[in-house]
Amino acid sequence: MKATFMYGPGDVRVEEAEKPRVVDSTDAVLKVISTCVCGSDLWPYRGLEGEQNGPRTMGHEYVGIVEEVGASVENVKVGDYVIGSFCLSDNTCPVCEAGYPSRCMHGGFVGAAQAEYVRIPQADGTLVVMPGEPTEEQLADLTAASDVLGTGWFAADEAQAGPGKTIVVVGDGAVGLSAVLAAKQLGAERIIAMSRHADRQALAKEFGATDIVEERGEAGVAKIKEMTGGVGADGVIEAVGTQESMMQAISACRPGGYVGYVGVAHGVQLDGGQLFFSEVHLMGGPAPVRKYLPEFVDLIYKGEIHPGKVFTKTVDLEDIAEGYKAMDERKAIKVRVRMK
Amino acid sequence: MKATFMYGPGDVRVEEAEKPRVVDSTDAVLKVISTCVCGSDLWPYRGLEGEQNGPRTMGHEYVGIVEEVGASVENVKVGDYVIGSFCLSDNTCPVCEAGYPSRCMHGGFVGAAQAEYVRIPQADGTLVVMPGEPTEEQLADLTAASDVLGTGWFAADEAQAGPGKTIVVVGDGAVGLSAVLAAKQLGAERIIAMSRHADRQALAKEFGATDIVEERGEAGVAKIKEMTGGVGADGVIEAVGTQESMMQAISACRPGGYVGYVGVAHGVQLDGGQLFFSEVHLMGGPAPVRKYLPEFVDLIYKGEIHPGKVFTKTVDLEDIAEGYKAMDERKAIKVRVRMK
Repeated sequence: MKATFMYGPGDVRVEEAEKPRVVDSTDAVLKVISTCVCGSDLWPYRGLEGEQNGPRTMGHEYVGIVEEVGASVENVKVGDYVIGSFCLSDNTCPVCEAGYPSRCMHGGFVGAAQAEYVRIPQADGTLVVMPGEPTEEQLADLTAASDVLGTGWFAADEAQAGPGKTIVVVGDGAVGLSAVLAAKQLGAERIIAMSRHADRQALAKEFGATDIVEERGEAGVAKIKEMTGGVGADGVIEAVGTQESMMQAISACRPGGYVGYVGVAHGVQLDGGQLFFSEVHLMGGPAPVRKYLPEFVDLIYKGEIHPGKVFTKTVDLEDIAEGYKAMDERKAIKVRVRMK
Repeated sequence: MKATFMYGPGDVRVEEAEKPRVVDSTDAVLKVISTCVCGSDLWPYRGLEGEQNGPRTMGHEYVGIVEEVGASVENVKVGDYVIGSFCLSDNTCPVCEAGYPSRCMHGGFVGAAQAEYVRIPQADGTLVVMPGEPTEEQLADLTAASDVLGTGWFAADEAQAGPGKTIVVVGDGAVGLSAVLAAKQLGAERIIAMSRHADRQALAKEFGATDIVEERGEAGVAKIKEMTGGVGADGVIEAVGTQESMMQAISACRPGGYVGYVGVAHGVQLDGGQLFFSEVHLMGGPAPVRKYLPEFVDLIYKGEIHPGKVFTKTVDLEDIAEGYKAMDERKAIKVRVRMK
């Protein structure tokens, strides 16, 4: 089968690889029918994750058809259309039960989904069966649901987005834009997207943003304070992962408000004293996408949400390097990989 | 009148000072009937808050009788027995309304309560009238309620202490011990106090601790993990404010759990990446004690809680330096100042 490998910064290749098979009795192997390139794939692409030893497999967002299952798998069967998250979860341990399948005690990460086939351990707890074959539009929506929608939704959830609330979104990548959609679905009254790119501002508005703020850093915080009577936002979503974006998020939040952060932190250091006197609720980490997937599948099959609009470019698997390049150069918000 | 001044590290003196008067129409002046020494007073006492220019007034925990009120004060009158928090609050701004009077938009801090009289700005929003003259035991309980009980309660509240929950308390000072009492009142099932001092362990048990862990740092975290089936605690209260205690608290918490931190952070730096993968809710800051005071007054006058047990030494105002010394040398958990 064909699979994607990153040989080093900027060097992505599609090569022949061995088709995965069931290894453990709890595994499933999927024929991938849609996958995509993640913002987090750009960290190693840009050489920002240290030295790499040899080629690495890539990809953790996927929709597929079950090709093979292990002997103990009960919840999915060969031929099912399924979706899963980038985190593996048994969905039964105390941490999963508490709502955090992304920290499952028997979990792990998917790391080779930009390929024709992928092996998914913990299939029973990780995969969600869909009602039937998705249309091409649904396939795009589902591919977004596999990670960015779930990640944005988690951030909106932790930021306590809901009726009467003013929510700020820091970051206008696919996750930030998905968080706007999530905040809207969760009933937030006012959704302020911080963005200075016309195409992303347009999608933010389409997803439910009521206001756009172009200023960043201290000027951005001042603008949010001005828009909220000097108080700050009830909730802030951080979807970038840099020192500047994190401080922007914390500072834009009102005392007692909620910051949901999902940008994978790179080089972020928080000063304890500053945090103490900011007095905001801070919560983030790998999103427990699995717990939201049944709701996402339902909303997508009913046509109520279209998170797939974050895909502004689609490529075939053999052209995936072109997709990485387009995202790296910010020529595409997010790139979907169509499978044949 | 007599008032306490800190001239520099280790140098606390009681001297004659001018009796405070109403300055703004929203002020009240109280005759202080009980005050105490705070753990946070020890930071400057130990020279850990930088250079000091001249003597500074001290004290922010108080119970008093209203001596004088400004023209616009409506909620308290001369002769009322009152209690307040170390934070001033109008109790009407959006931040107070949201439950964070400690970050009141028109707030500030009390800083001269270790004296015969104290001026309290924003009297209407800051002070709570009590049902009548307190007994000597109630006076001790109320003095604790003015700060340490409220601070411990806030931490327990943010750590989501409640039925079925396992709560860990890091720090066995007056705030940590008060947090044990609060977690018990809030219905926590298991309360693990981390302490290696016999007298504090005994009080922790009296306040409701079900378990004591003497190990600290990584060994302490390992012990908590062992006691919770490898999962970690549902909620952790941090009541110290050092790098080690903060990391101990975060690491002892289960993914998706809640850390309430109230130790005033000194030199704490949190690594964003580590925080991201810990995936715990983090909330702390100056405690919004004011919102809990009516409930505390009620519980204390009914005799249901005895937070005043944290006072293991009582001194007269003129001997307050002795109180600072006893706390600094850990010969007293907390020192109350009896007024004549």
